[in-house]
Amino acid sequence: MAGGLGSRFGGRTESMPKGFIEIDGMAMVERSVRKLLDAGIEQIIIGTGHHNEWYDRLAEKYPAIKTVKNEHFRETSSMGTLEVCAPYVTGDCLLLESDLLYDAISLFVLKNDPHSDVILASGPTHSEDEVYLQADAEGMLEKVSKKRNEIRTISGELVGISKVSKPFLDKMVEYAVRHHADMPKLDYEHAMEGVSQEGTPIFVRKVEYLAWTEIDDEAMLERALQQVWPRIRENESLRAVRREVLLNPGPSTTTDSVKYAQVVPDICPRELEFGDIMEQVSHDLTAFVADPKKYTTIMFGCSGTGADEAMLASCVPPNGKLLVVDNGSYGARFAKIASVYHMDMTVFKSSTYEPIDLGALEAEFRKQRYDALAIVYHETTTGLLNRIDQICPLAKKYGMLTLVDAVSAYGGMPIDMERLGIDFLTSTSNKHIQGMAGIGFVVCKNSELEKQKDWPMRNYYFNLYDQWQYFLKTKQTRFTPPVQTMYALRQAIIETKQETIEKRFARYTACWEILVQALDSIGLHMLVKRENQSHFITAILIPDTPKYRFEDLHDYARSFGYTIYPGKLGNIDTFRIANMGDIRPEEMQRFVPILRTYMHSIGVC
Amino acid sequence: MAGGLGSRFGGRTESMPKGFIEIDGMAMVERSVRKLLDAGIEQIIIGTGHHNEWYDRLAEKYPAIKTVKNEHFRETSSMGTLEVCAPYVTGDCLLLESDLLYDAISLFVLKNDPHSDVILASGPTHSEDEVYLQADAEGMLEKVSKKRNEIRTISGELVGISKVSKPFLDKMVEYAVRHHADMPKLDYEHAMEGVSQEGTPIFVRKVEYLAWTEIDDEAMLERALQQVWPRIRENESLRAVRREVLLNPGPSTTTDSVKYAQVVPDICPRELEFGDIMEQVSHDLTAFVADPKKYTTIMFGCSGTGADEAMLASCVPPNGKLLVVDNGSYGARFAKIASVYHMDMTVFKSSTYEPIDLGALEAEFRKQRYDALAIVYHETTTGLLNRIDQICPLAKKYGMLTLVDAVSAYGGMPIDMERLGIDFLTSTSNKHIQGMAGIGFVVCKNSELEKQKDWPMRNYYFNLYDQWQYFLKTKQTRFTPPVQTMYALRQAIIETKQETIEKRFARYTACWEILVQALDSIGLHMLVKRENQSHFITAILIPDTPKYRFEDLHDYARSFGYTIYPGKLGNIDTFRIANMGDIRPEEMQRFVPILRTYMHSIGVC
Repeated sequence: MAGGLGSRFGGRTESMPKGFIEIDGMAMVERSVRKLLDAGIEQIIIGTGHHNEWYDRLAEKYPAIKTVKNEHFRETSSMGTLEVCAPYVTGDCLLLESDLLYDAISLFVLKNDPHSDVILASGPTHSEDEVYLQADAEGMLEKVSKKRNEIRTISGELVGISKVSKPFLDKMVEYAVRHHADMPKLDYEHAMEGVSQEGTPIFVRKVEYLAWTEIDDEAMLERALQQVWPRIRENESLRAVRREVLLNPGPSTTTDSVKYAQVVPDICPRELEFGDIMEQVSHDLTAFVADPKKYTTIMFGCSGTGADEAMLASCVPPNGKLLVVDNGSYGARFAKIASVYHMDMTVFKSSTYEPIDLGALEAEFRKQRYDALAIVYHETTTGLLNRIDQICPLAKKYGMLTLVDAVSAYGGMPIDMERLGIDFLTSTSNKHIQGMAGIGFVVCKNSELEKQKDWPMRNYYFNLYDQWQYFLKTKQTRFTPPVQTMYALRQAIIETKQETIEKRFARYTACWEILVQALDSIGLHMLVKRENQSHFITAILIPDTPKYRFEDLHDYARSFGYTIYPGKLGNIDTFRIANMGDIRPEEMQRFVPILRTYMHSIGVC
Repeated sequence: MAGGLGSRFGGRTESMPKGFIEIDGMAMVERSVRKLLDAGIEQIIIGTGHHNEWYDRLAEKYPAIKTVKNEHFRETSSMGTLEVCAPYVTGDCLLLESDLLYDAISLFVLKNDPHSDVILASGPTHSEDEVYLQADAEGMLEKVSKKRNEIRTISGELVGISKVSKPFLDKMVEYAVRHHADMPKLDYEHAMEGVSQEGTPIFVRKVEYLAWTEIDDEAMLERALQQVWPRIRENESLRAVRREVLLNPGPSTTTDSVKYAQVVPDICPRELEFGDIMEQVSHDLTAFVADPKKYTTIMFGCSGTGADEAMLASCVPPNGKLLVVDNGSYGARFAKIASVYHMDMTVFKSSTYEPIDLGALEAEFRKQRYDALAIVYHETTTGLLNRIDQICPLAKKYGMLTLVDAVSAYGGMPIDMERLGIDFLTSTSNKHIQGMAGIGFVVCKNSELEKQKDWPMRNYYFNLYDQWQYFLKTKQTRFTPPVQTMYALRQAIIETKQETIEKRFARYTACWEILVQALDSIGLHMLVKRENQSHFITAILIPDTPKYRFEDLHDYARSFGYTIYPGKLGNIDTFRIANMGDIRPEEMQRFVPILRTYMHSIGVC
């Protein structure tokens, strides 16, 4: 609710909404938006009014925000603003005032409260603008007032954050509409009071020592900066997890919000609400790369290799002929899996560090009829990006199914399966999507998946068709899924949508450019030519000195919080620097002198 | 460090150590021990002195505690006590005073601090017993003193909790020994100061608003109860996760400490320290059921069914003949998996709710030579506990390999694989062991596992021998493991060791007895006879009224935070109440009236 004039501030809020007053370099409302996103909120509806253009600009920065203007903001109060927002609210929600500074634990407390409708209260703030709450013996709201003498017993002070179910919200709106004539300037908390008095109680959750403040005028702002903000900042920093920058090719560096998204109430994964979450996650994973009407994502508790095995074992037709492109460890792994299942397979070998010769590949396509092509999108072994955009369309021309290991490509770069002619694609929860390890998935073209209906299974756990059908029927996976990893993946998806895959690719590229420039200036050489690289991982030829030891470089970098990775090629010695996950250009910048210092110490530069 | 006399307390501590003064019904030191266990501390060494018998009794209650008596506690101070403990400290440790009341976040902050040696400090406490710390520009300890005038700038006040690496601890001891003559009553903080001044700095981590207090006398105790304890209690309660009691057969109810154990700094699972964790987890999982010298636990990212598939596909010899006992869904699943792999299999069908006829089974053993027997230990479908203690030894007599699905038996009851004649056994992280879903494992008899060396693989991801050998060579799994689930499993193991499996079984049995009694009084009937039940799950025949709907009962129970489970038998209608995981008899007691009320509402009682 951000429609208000903020008139008590005088000059400062004449040309801007109060929520945009900055605390420690960030507008209050923007900080609040970030806390909400970090807490797993998927959509934020801001009811605007006074200088709404500020909020509209904020919405451009945060795709999760939708603004709705209360055209009558001068004649109404917060409830008027809430009324214009309510039609856009489709489920349970949190309700916040715009001018709040609060410890993010508030959101965790509300989410964890067993009551469906909860109003957050605190102990005494001595703010001189208190809104007092009175609750009954069961803790349910009885009375709201700014006047001390109207309250029998103070149960707490209104913070301005509530958890409200859709039915309760509807009742608030209904209450407000009923009182348009007699209470045109109704505050939302009085609508809550009204609804609660009329028999739909809302619980008052009191946190005695909560660090929070509302900011209504200059004096409150001063007090916030001196007393409240330092407490909030410290409380939140205590819960921060030590940052380790993983320059290995996944599991990737994750945000703290993804880490904390694993901490949820215990739930039986056969509950419908968990089914809804899996359905949403599956839908969103599909939507990043394909049209969810035509494609489906099927998840398993496993690693990326597990997803590869699910794809190969399920999708190569019975007695089908498979062509595997092998230009690195992961292509070789495809061949290994196919051989375990005694598939009729040809391996097309190609250089590990040079682009695939398309002419030679097409010649292979011509030699005999292949049913399926299996190829790696981005060879993590070397950082070589295979030209899937050329190879898959060509394979489709020859009538082949295309099975693509996109484990370390998916989520890091824009991919359009339909345009690229990819039928099946694998990835995992812990690479570019920035979730936790434990879920592998296959994005499948429905029309191809349907063909597997009567195919004999090659294995049981990893059968795509069975897993698909069971989920369609029950909204459950056949076997217990990794529940907490699923919640983390859901949060990682929220954050990926927030950043967008395009911008994630740009961020990776910026990190990579910094690295490439540094390698050049140090005098180190890359295995793969710049133009053939993914920008996600860089294989670096080890320097030509016996003093070089990977372990030394690794341990030195790790002492600064950076984890690097050895090479994985049999014949050429490399080490690898990945930039996948939640890493930032300034972190890569700080890594450069570490690399330089080590290389200097062994006489390389 | 708990050797002190606590003499400032006068009478109260004449006959007991200060750490045993109770706050809100629990001795300070016991509360501290619990916080340490919850934070993932595996061993707690208590240096005792004055009335050490109190601590020795505490150690009987908490297997993680080891007490070491400082015989010279009257003539030495805290450093004297630390000196006698130091030889038992094998790695990095936390160092705590015994008379502390503190917010558990302190431990999280120290664990997350990138420095290896850290001394925790707070803002002003006005306790009148402050120990002041002075740090240099880098935040490293320069000076410790109780005298305000000896300190140039106060960087913070000593809390009494530090993180100390083994080398730093050794230096503290060495410093103390050097000063035995001139400083016989050396406090540990002055040893820290000395070591830091001599060139091994220790970082001062200040938490300005930390809720903590030391309790040295009655006045401090009063202040603690009035001011500090309420803040600590509230802070910790804000981080508590809403409790849902899962009466479904896994994933089980978990502790908050297991939930929070997932929140760790990002780590590449190929790092040696993660290898050490996996090795320890694997060792401990084995040790619960077998001798780790002869048996090995092999883990995969998967569900229990994944582990079953790994076991069957890996352990049935090539062209081997398999006998599957099917007396429920999980036995039937064994048969399904074996058929997918085209194994030469016979299915021995038995009643889903009556004990297996041992005579008939032995007759089957005699009919032909079987290479392997696959059987479920505890049929989750019905709660029937198969007599593995009779069946497996018999199978061994006939020269069969014994493959046991112990998914919902392992960790819930004492199992001795060697005594029972079990060669391979499966389970998962999320049942009785009380971790999170995502890891399936197979406990294997090494001598049988070795035979698989040259066997052709039936699948790739789930191959036991390959996974075993790779881990032995590298301390890594072949494919990315579910990292955070592994940390949660590690914490769950700490808590299982703490409770012991014997006591866990007793707790389950207590819950089950409450349920059985309630069913009897309500007039509901169990599918399986009492004496044949596992005590982990109870299948209840649905009442004979058309008013009964599982969904109604489920939703009603869920509104109180209890999740129940449908039946899974084709021909007999049941619903199921499990008691697996972190559930307590009093919670089962509270469930009884919920069940009764629903049954009453449909006319059953």
